[in-house]
Amino acid sequence: MSRTNIQVLLASRPTGGVQESNFCIVETELPSPGAGEILVKNQYLSLDPYMRGRMNAAKSYAPSVALGEVMVGETVGIVVESRNPQFQEHDIVRGFLGWQQYGFSDGRDLNKVTVTEHLPASVYLGAVGMPGVTAWVGLFEIGKPQPGETVVISAASGAVGSIAGQLAKSKGCRVVGIAGGKEKCAYVVDELGFDACIDYKAGNLVEDLARATPAGIDVYFESVGGEILEAVLGRVNTFARIPLCGLISRYSESQPAGLRNLTSLLFNRVTLQGFIVGDYADAWPSITRQLGQMIASGQLKYRETIAEGLEHAPAAFIGMLKGQNLGKQLVKLI
Amino acid sequence: MSRTNIQVLLASRPTGGVQESNFCIVETELPSPGAGEILVKNQYLSLDPYMRGRMNAAKSYAPSVALGEVMVGETVGIVVESRNPQFQEHDIVRGFLGWQQYGFSDGRDLNKVTVTEHLPASVYLGAVGMPGVTAWVGLFEIGKPQPGETVVISAASGAVGSIAGQLAKSKGCRVVGIAGGKEKCAYVVDELGFDACIDYKAGNLVEDLARATPAGIDVYFESVGGEILEAVLGRVNTFARIPLCGLISRYSESQPAGLRNLTSLLFNRVTLQGFIVGDYADAWPSITRQLGQMIASGQLKYRETIAEGLEHAPAAFIGMLKGQNLGKQLVKLI
Repeated sequence: MSRTNIQVLLASRPTGGVQESNFCIVETELPSPGAGEILVKNQYLSLDPYMRGRMNAAKSYAPSVALGEVMVGETVGIVVESRNPQFQEHDIVRGFLGWQQYGFSDGRDLNKVTVTEHLPASVYLGAVGMPGVTAWVGLFEIGKPQPGETVVISAASGAVGSIAGQLAKSKGCRVVGIAGGKEKCAYVVDELGFDACIDYKAGNLVEDLARATPAGIDVYFESVGGEILEAVLGRVNTFARIPLCGLISRYSESQPAGLRNLTSLLFNRVTLQGFIVGDYADAWPSITRQLGQMIASGQLKYRETIAEGLEHAPAAFIGMLKGQNLGKQLVKLI
Repeated sequence: MSRTNIQVLLASRPTGGVQESNFCIVETELPSPGAGEILVKNQYLSLDPYMRGRMNAAKSYAPSVALGEVMVGETVGIVVESRNPQFQEHDIVRGFLGWQQYGFSDGRDLNKVTVTEHLPASVYLGAVGMPGVTAWVGLFEIGKPQPGETVVISAASGAVGSIAGQLAKSKGCRVVGIAGGKEKCAYVVDELGFDACIDYKAGNLVEDLARATPAGIDVYFESVGGEILEAVLGRVNTFARIPLCGLISRYSESQPAGLRNLTSLLFNRVTLQGFIVGDYADAWPSITRQLGQMIASGQLKYRETIAEGLEHAPAAFIGMLKGQNLGKQLVKLI
């Protein structure tokens, strides 16, 4: 059976902000799977901030995407052909097949997932996927929140922050989100159940943060950097923990602002620890099982922003980097 | 017996660099010890970078010194009168009696020390005192160096850095110091046994550091901040640890430069942890016992820069903040 693939390639490296012209969409002819290979038709593509780093020439924690190559990305899809005994046609699988309609795999990087009424395929790219595990690892392995402590979550309405905050609530913490805009803040408080949410675009970040954290800050889940980190460092308690998950405010800056308040780290004996979820591969099955149960039971809530069609992936990605999504940003392949 | 005390008071708070005029030296009449009190004649006063923070109005990790009060400081001295059954005349004691000839104590903050041929009284303010314990805690509790790893020590010829580097050598690490000037670097390599020492004043910090750390940096013992920290962040390996012990380059700056390379912390999964030796009081007896044995046996070496007479304490303190001392800066009270 002859099939045509649609792929989004990295056409050029961005200087500063990402442009749609940094991508190029091509149709290619699809060969048949070789011995041991599986052909997957992708249903959903995950768009994540880390991809911004892969567009640069400089190595981040993983190699760059080469110019002219398919953009990297996590996917959920259906097996349409298999020459691998471990996978059958119609299996639903999660993998890293990239920004393309179809992808091949030898099976080593594919995981079968179970789709149910309460766990649709897309959730395996969000709350029960990499973002959910990132939230879990950062909060519990590094943040180690104790009941009654105050936990602040940046990018609180996003795929990672929304889960991290709800997990902190489940531990009996006071949880304060930071998000951009009234709509996101309302979602974070009313639907996700955070105790408060600060709109950093309202222009009173330092004062609003002080008001929302009367007992100081014990854990700060950091995905943003810049002025928000600075404001938090003015409020941290002794022995505060800062899991450093991302720095989305800096990814597109060639001269990002420095962290000025290093003395707060010293005087308050703060631990600031960068982490990458990929380093916790052994814990992944146990964490996703627990997240799946919490999602299925309704204990954890999530939202998705879904762009329809691979051709809209570049615009959706650019919008996500600007914070235009609510919850997990996905592309539905049609 | 009527005695006259000599005290150094905080006369005014520095704006920027410390001046001698920020201190004032007074003579006062000394009362007799009250019930339960001990009167100590101080022999040595320790001068340490943390004191700079106590001169500011803003709280650091401990309260400020009030204007007109005796400057805080660790001391070793001899008991000259005791109305406390736990201390006898002629006991040699370490305490926090401040910048003064005589001090009173109720005994709770005094520790008797044993002076021997190889452990003179002054060593209890340096290698076997707070600086030595700071080096031990930062290196072993936070830095956790493994044999074969590369450890970089800032302020390498100072009271803390010189011990931290020798301890790292004892664990089989490659140890690279950073110090200001040829004389200090020669001391660090030739006498303390570091593998290399970089003169940050020579103007090639980034290149020199790269040359001295061909396998990258696994542990960075941070006492300085500023450009040295930035240079190190350009060389850290994944999972590097940075015990944050001090930021001497920043203490006198009202607008210190920021830490620009936060992305290195993220991408390399670095742990940056502020610590204060006072938080490890329980471990102090065990650590000082081990340090004392290593000093007495000659395994650990140290040097002292000694100012003679309390009236020279302000100038010696200002010189230490500028890095003019080699090893532990003390004042000998005469």
